[in-house]
Amino acid sequence: MPAPRPRTLSLNLFLYHLGHHEAAWRHPSTDPSRIYDPTYYVELARKAEAAKLDAVFFADGPVLHSGVDHNPAEGPEPLLTLATIAAHTRRIGLVATASTTFYEPYNLARLFASLDHLSGGRAGWNVVTTQSADAAANFGLDAHPDPLARYARAEEFLEATTRLWDSWEEGAALADRVQGRWADPDRIHPADFTGEHLAVAGALNVRRTPQGRPVIVQAGASNAGRDFAARWAEAIFTAHQRIEDAQAFYSDVKRTALAHGRSADQIKILPGISPFIGSTEAEARELEATFNELTVPEYGLRNLGAQAGVDLTTLDLDAPVPLDLFADAGDVTDNTRSRFQVVAGIVRRDRPTLRELLHRLAGARGHQVVAGTPEQIADRIETWFTQGAADGFNVMPPALPLGLDAFTDHVVPILQRRGLFRTEYEGTTLRDHLGLEVPENRWTRQRAALGARASA
Amino acid sequence: MPAPRPRTLSLNLFLYHLGHHEAAWRHPSTDPSRIYDPTYYVELARKAEAAKLDAVFFADGPVLHSGVDHNPAEGPEPLLTLATIAAHTRRIGLVATASTTFYEPYNLARLFASLDHLSGGRAGWNVVTTQSADAAANFGLDAHPDPLARYARAEEFLEATTRLWDSWEEGAALADRVQGRWADPDRIHPADFTGEHLAVAGALNVRRTPQGRPVIVQAGASNAGRDFAARWAEAIFTAHQRIEDAQAFYSDVKRTALAHGRSADQIKILPGISPFIGSTEAEARELEATFNELTVPEYGLRNLGAQAGVDLTTLDLDAPVPLDLFADAGDVTDNTRSRFQVVAGIVRRDRPTLRELLHRLAGARGHQVVAGTPEQIADRIETWFTQGAADGFNVMPPALPLGLDAFTDHVVPILQRRGLFRTEYEGTTLRDHLGLEVPENRWTRQRAALGARASA
Repeated sequence: MPAPRPRTLSLNLFLYHLGHHEAAWRHPSTDPSRIYDPTYYVELARKAEAAKLDAVFFADGPVLHSGVDHNPAEGPEPLLTLATIAAHTRRIGLVATASTTFYEPYNLARLFASLDHLSGGRAGWNVVTTQSADAAANFGLDAHPDPLARYARAEEFLEATTRLWDSWEEGAALADRVQGRWADPDRIHPADFTGEHLAVAGALNVRRTPQGRPVIVQAGASNAGRDFAARWAEAIFTAHQRIEDAQAFYSDVKRTALAHGRSADQIKILPGISPFIGSTEAEARELEATFNELTVPEYGLRNLGAQAGVDLTTLDLDAPVPLDLFADAGDVTDNTRSRFQVVAGIVRRDRPTLRELLHRLAGARGHQVVAGTPEQIADRIETWFTQGAADGFNVMPPALPLGLDAFTDHVVPILQRRGLFRTEYEGTTLRDHLGLEVPENRWTRQRAALGARASA
Repeated sequence: MPAPRPRTLSLNLFLYHLGHHEAAWRHPSTDPSRIYDPTYYVELARKAEAAKLDAVFFADGPVLHSGVDHNPAEGPEPLLTLATIAAHTRRIGLVATASTTFYEPYNLARLFASLDHLSGGRAGWNVVTTQSADAAANFGLDAHPDPLARYARAEEFLEATTRLWDSWEEGAALADRVQGRWADPDRIHPADFTGEHLAVAGALNVRRTPQGRPVIVQAGASNAGRDFAARWAEAIFTAHQRIEDAQAFYSDVKRTALAHGRSADQIKILPGISPFIGSTEAEARELEATFNELTVPEYGLRNLGAQAGVDLTTLDLDAPVPLDLFADAGDVTDNTRSRFQVVAGIVRRDRPTLRELLHRLAGARGHQVVAGTPEQIADRIETWFTQGAADGFNVMPPALPLGLDAFTDHVVPILQRRGLFRTEYEGTTLRDHLGLEVPENRWTRQRAALGARASA
């Protein structure tokens, strides 16, 4: 058994249109004409790879957001974009979000297995159940399934896809030219899964992949989402404003994972962080203010009003947000509620004006936004990493490429000097970067168990 | 109105595992270890691009063929493979097969629209309905839908996806930084389609693509397939052994297209051709024989027996095939029947032994296999092209890269010297290569009609 490797920080680059700040597209540093340009994504990923980041990460949903009138809520589909990136990079991981509610397991298992093969073992899947009712209407569903029904399907979906990824046992591929045997049918196993929500009969037409299966990432912070994550996720992308909340979430997830018989170090907690970086803190705050001034208030009001379930357009932008608008949300049953709780916490603690609240949320949709010097950003990352709040971060640059350049040029070197972050990739796969084991193929395990019994 | 351009030959490269001959993987020229290697596909596509071919083409089905024990019936998913190829090529078209029976229109419309954007207008979709009952079981369906039901869904699927591709009218994208307007919501239109088999409500989250929509290719030769093709297809991939049959099909499709109000030159007929190429005809035939000798008879017998619906393993391989095994198939209701008719024709006309029949079918699954010198192959292509049997060909090399090299190095130059094939790309998109118009956006057309009426 090898010595346990020292705990190392994970850093992903979350690529999001022209940046995570909702007004990024209006900032002169961004180029709106490039959102369908493959070289735009390749250039960003290559910068992240040069900085030795673990992965690039894409959000996704099968629906056009109604805010597209004021926001670049469009772009190429993530899996194809990642295949494009894979073709021009060598090491960096490739994580795409995809929905268990609106895909079929056979199709999605193939897509991710293919990405893992084509990238030499760099694929990750951010599993979401998609909360948008508008998305349901794009798939002929009369009503959007509620969170419990969505997670029940997600559970079956993971069972089906992991069976498909295991369907080619080790030794199944032969390519024996002399005997004329391409594969050993005794080592190819049908998925043979029938659930309440879906069923898959046969084996995958893609052999077992370099990573065994893609890294399973999960982003749901609802109660159902947490339990699902503790069972399946190998990395969790989460949103916390304060270290206390992040620490509570961190220890809760690790505890639940242990209760499911998993090792705590095989589930990485990665909060989002959106850093405004300046050579002084004042300069960083000024940069943030520049972006906030570019926001379109109608856009923020519409999103926030939809969360609160009320029309906010009649309120005074420069008066404090009424406390009763965001009273405690009670139990967190889905992501809308968990986002609502984040907003409620800000309103309760900081008593912002409506305009201030819109600016707080404009940065990264509820994820923490930090303005500071490279040292201050590095300090924040180090504190959360060493104080039981995070295993790493999903870095969400406010604007692209501006915020990525600032992070890789100025923050990453500090983290490297402090010995917190790699200066070279040690392995070739995303599992290598994250320190995650290759899951054993269930048929290989069973065969080994039978062999041990037979020889006993 | 520009002068009509002279009729030009189309040539696609059909990429299929290690080659189209079923024993290609056993031939020493192929490398079985490369079937998941992205550089394998990129190298093949770059050779095709250097020869100025119109497109590369991938078959597909969401099922593992039971013949995988003797055949490389696996590989990376076509759309992701084409995104990989797109990243390393500049002009060649990219056609993927995908099934309307086993995909959802919103997901597939996004994938193809994204490929069209990422490739600068080179995407094509070979629409299939998938005849395999094993595939249905991979999607939780108790029974495989019959051909008429599959084509009824396909019809709705095309209606839904073309509405999605049209949902961003011309002028919808603004990126107006000064006004803070990303898009004009009055020019973004929900798909708003409800059929018997599927429904899609909203607009696509991908704007209109460089080609307006991907080129629609179709391969079904059944009666339902032909009618569907005459309505929707811009290119038809078809299988014919004899020029008389190809001519009858060609004129029938063009006539039906005209009856649907379409222009005959906007639907290209591309039969498959699998050429064994030698410096003499004898050498070419010897090469073909070498491949045939590498076939695994059990594999061919199992496939042919499944088509005939009988167990063929008890028959003498070297006795003539009994005529009653492949009596006339009657009406062509699906692709299995159309393939059956091809086999019946061979048995009736040529009275082969079972082994000879297996060898005939080993080449390209019912497509024409030709062994000859480069001049003879070029003659065949020219004859079919000039005698109303084809607008071009889907070239199916028996082995890859061997058969591709022979075709591009020796046959393409002859076709170029004869003035039948381009020596340089004239345009940048697949529609440019094929001489296909960009379909007008329905909303732009409607707006123009309203404008004309208002000003009348």
